[in-house]
Amino acid sequence: MQKTSNSLVDTLRHRRQKLANLINFPAILWSGSINPRNFLANHFPFRASSHFLYFAGLPLPNAAIRLEAGKLELFIDDPHPSSALWHGEMPTCNEIADKIGADSAKPMAELESRLEGAATIPVQDAATWTQQSQLLNRWVLPQQPPQEIDLELAKAIISLRLTHDESALTELRKAAAVTVAAHKAGMAATSKAKLEAEVRAAMEGVIISHNMTTSYNSIVTVHGEVLHNEQYHHPLQPGDLLLADVGAETEMGWAADVTRTWPVSGKFSSTQRDIYDVVLAAHDACIAKIYPDVEYEDIHLLAATVIAEGLVDLGILQGNPQDLVEMDAYALFFPHGIGHLLGLDVHDMEDLGDLAGYEEGRKRSDRFGLGYLRLNRPLRPGMLVTIEPGFYQVPAILHNREMRAKYENVVNWQRLSQFADVRGIRIEDDVLVTHKGSEVLTAALPNATSEVEDLVIRN
Amino acid sequence: MQKTSNSLVDTLRHRRQKLANLINFPAILWSGSINPRNFLANHFPFRASSHFLYFAGLPLPNAAIRLEAGKLELFIDDPHPSSALWHGEMPTCNEIADKIGADSAKPMAELESRLEGAATIPVQDAATWTQQSQLLNRWVLPQQPPQEIDLELAKAIISLRLTHDESALTELRKAAAVTVAAHKAGMAATSKAKLEAEVRAAMEGVIISHNMTTSYNSIVTVHGEVLHNEQYHHPLQPGDLLLADVGAETEMGWAADVTRTWPVSGKFSSTQRDIYDVVLAAHDACIAKIYPDVEYEDIHLLAATVIAEGLVDLGILQGNPQDLVEMDAYALFFPHGIGHLLGLDVHDMEDLGDLAGYEEGRKRSDRFGLGYLRLNRPLRPGMLVTIEPGFYQVPAILHNREMRAKYENVVNWQRLSQFADVRGIRIEDDVLVTHKGSEVLTAALPNATSEVEDLVIRN
Repeated sequence: MQKTSNSLVDTLRHRRQKLANLINFPAILWSGSINPRNFLANHFPFRASSHFLYFAGLPLPNAAIRLEAGKLELFIDDPHPSSALWHGEMPTCNEIADKIGADSAKPMAELESRLEGAATIPVQDAATWTQQSQLLNRWVLPQQPPQEIDLELAKAIISLRLTHDESALTELRKAAAVTVAAHKAGMAATSKAKLEAEVRAAMEGVIISHNMTTSYNSIVTVHGEVLHNEQYHHPLQPGDLLLADVGAETEMGWAADVTRTWPVSGKFSSTQRDIYDVVLAAHDACIAKIYPDVEYEDIHLLAATVIAEGLVDLGILQGNPQDLVEMDAYALFFPHGIGHLLGLDVHDMEDLGDLAGYEEGRKRSDRFGLGYLRLNRPLRPGMLVTIEPGFYQVPAILHNREMRAKYENVVNWQRLSQFADVRGIRIEDDVLVTHKGSEVLTAALPNATSEVEDLVIRN
Repeated sequence: MQKTSNSLVDTLRHRRQKLANLINFPAILWSGSINPRNFLANHFPFRASSHFLYFAGLPLPNAAIRLEAGKLELFIDDPHPSSALWHGEMPTCNEIADKIGADSAKPMAELESRLEGAATIPVQDAATWTQQSQLLNRWVLPQQPPQEIDLELAKAIISLRLTHDESALTELRKAAAVTVAAHKAGMAATSKAKLEAEVRAAMEGVIISHNMTTSYNSIVTVHGEVLHNEQYHHPLQPGDLLLADVGAETEMGWAADVTRTWPVSGKFSSTQRDIYDVVLAAHDACIAKIYPDVEYEDIHLLAATVIAEGLVDLGILQGNPQDLVEMDAYALFFPHGIGHLLGLDVHDMEDLGDLAGYEEGRKRSDRFGLGYLRLNRPLRPGMLVTIEPGFYQVPAILHNREMRAKYENVVNWQRLSQFADVRGIRIEDDVLVTHKGSEVLTAALPNATSEVEDLVIRN
């Protein structure tokens, strides 16, 4: 029986008891090792495996936990005596064990005697998955779907992590609040900024000042049509829209993921406003539709419909909106899914491929409009998802000969050319499914054009 | 013959011609791969191997170059057609080859036919050194000293990278300038900051806004006595000194490395000022002594002497300063080396162990005062080194029973207790060895107590 009692200990005990109800074999989760950058002592910031974090609570490098029947065994070496000079006094193995309510604490070398019959999940860094493979005497590979007991373990963990407990939600709300502040700072910094990098600095500065990290590499770009743009060197021009997809991650690893798009000048052009309002209408319609038991794919198709309707109204698409959705014509301009799971990972549990995102028995569609959908499950209370419709003029799509031929009659290309100042718009919020419907964790960040303009201009 | 002519092409051609003068076998340098963080698509920012960067000029992931007799062959795959959707139009293999003046450009798969007799240097990430080992059919391990032709190659590259050409110096000056601005911003942000993290944010914000990265994980701490402190959660108290060791790295990978220590209140206490001035005297004396042919170890010992003298004057140490240096008593308070090489890595070429830092035939001392010295060579024009004396009250040293016994008679422990508000001070600049002596690349950042106080208080 645990003697210590605090919320972290209680949370972790509760999580592993739930796991014990689902599997009848031991699970060993490694935290991962530190990735060297230039050389051993110049390394990337440590990020523990999310599965480890979920059950161990603390980002401990070079550690493992063994979970069986609700018991937690911690494996971690005491700090080397000489490390006190460089790193200060570090907690001992036993002190850490107390903090997380472990039933026992042993050096890593003793893990070897506790491996039998244990399932695991591969950690991303090669040093660790190599070690996992060697110790368990089978391949444990991050890019390969788990098999047998590893698959059973993955499914059990997914069923826990799919919906968030109160402790997780407390962290996710913190990440959301700091992310909201970061976006406001980014808008406020725009009028004085000459480069994308300067707006990025203002946004990440807020995240760093709260002792958090970014949960993914920020996108802060006037080329929103490049969906995963990690360049920040472009100058800001008065007619540009700036798309910022930036999220904070708490010290314990919980993520936010938010996008706003605002005019560099502080004023949307009429064409920018027209498209923005279509995207916002899709965003609002989707969030209004989020309830338990609703299929997330239907949320995606709702966004598709609202976008198709809006583009028909603007004369960019022509035809019946429902037909345009069925032929994936909307995806010319919205070529990604409406969102994804969010939790300890920004695409939560994507290390397990589609195991978490897709309900058992479902597979990715090969349709142009559905193939990029990362989540295809009925919604359940406690799930946190992003809602992130967008509109992009991606040259690789719009200049593609096959695409142009296929959609020749439904796109008014001449009308489209009048919207050349809209390269990319996305509006993304983090939405918790509740028993009554939904709660937008990032609701404090405005998204209406007039409010966004105010935040940009005010400075 | 090269047709393109620009400074990057010329610089790279010059570097590989110098390499060709030193070795008569081919060298293959890999750039390294992207380290996944949570999952494959959520990765750490890419950092190319420094040896690759030196000869290839651009941070290209998953690439290799083969150097032989002054010729450069580039191996890199063209971007996958589908990547244009997510990453935009990327340069082709041939476009990159033009940019860096490569003599040929081929897909990675063709590297296999060009391996014979080639030397290499291991890249830090396991995916890459595993690939290097497999392709070359021998172990190529980052933590193992290079052998045979790999050792010859390492020595040849070291002899080039030890002194910087004009192109490198241009980059190093950029990194230094942004680092100076970052430190000024950190000082300016202190009066309004409540946490270490907020000062860190102000400093890293400047670096990000210039589209640079940090060249190492920042140290911004009121616990300067923890030498490699990567925690930022402590509150700032009026009596604290804040130690900030923060450096920028340019897009091409060139680093700066600067430390300042300032009073949170904007005013040094008299004890803080006394110790600060001892450290500053050591700093200034060392820089004044930097000339070609001077032994860097002598610079370290000069710092030791000035610190010993200063601490004798303050009554903390007692005895003859020269004796105190010989018995390593100064190292109780200055337990690291006076500095290191600086270039593409913050500890330049430390991936090769002491091969770069130590002149051939020299080894690390086992003396307490000299064992942490990272550079032990005669200085040469074009070398960039840090000068970073410090004073720390490290509990692991000062509370160590053996240490206390050994230095019982030379430390006035009672007098020392009056300096309890000085936990850690370091002053670090980046100093280029010139033909005439030296040039401090970071000289624009003040270090005198009154100037530092002004910068903190002005805001």
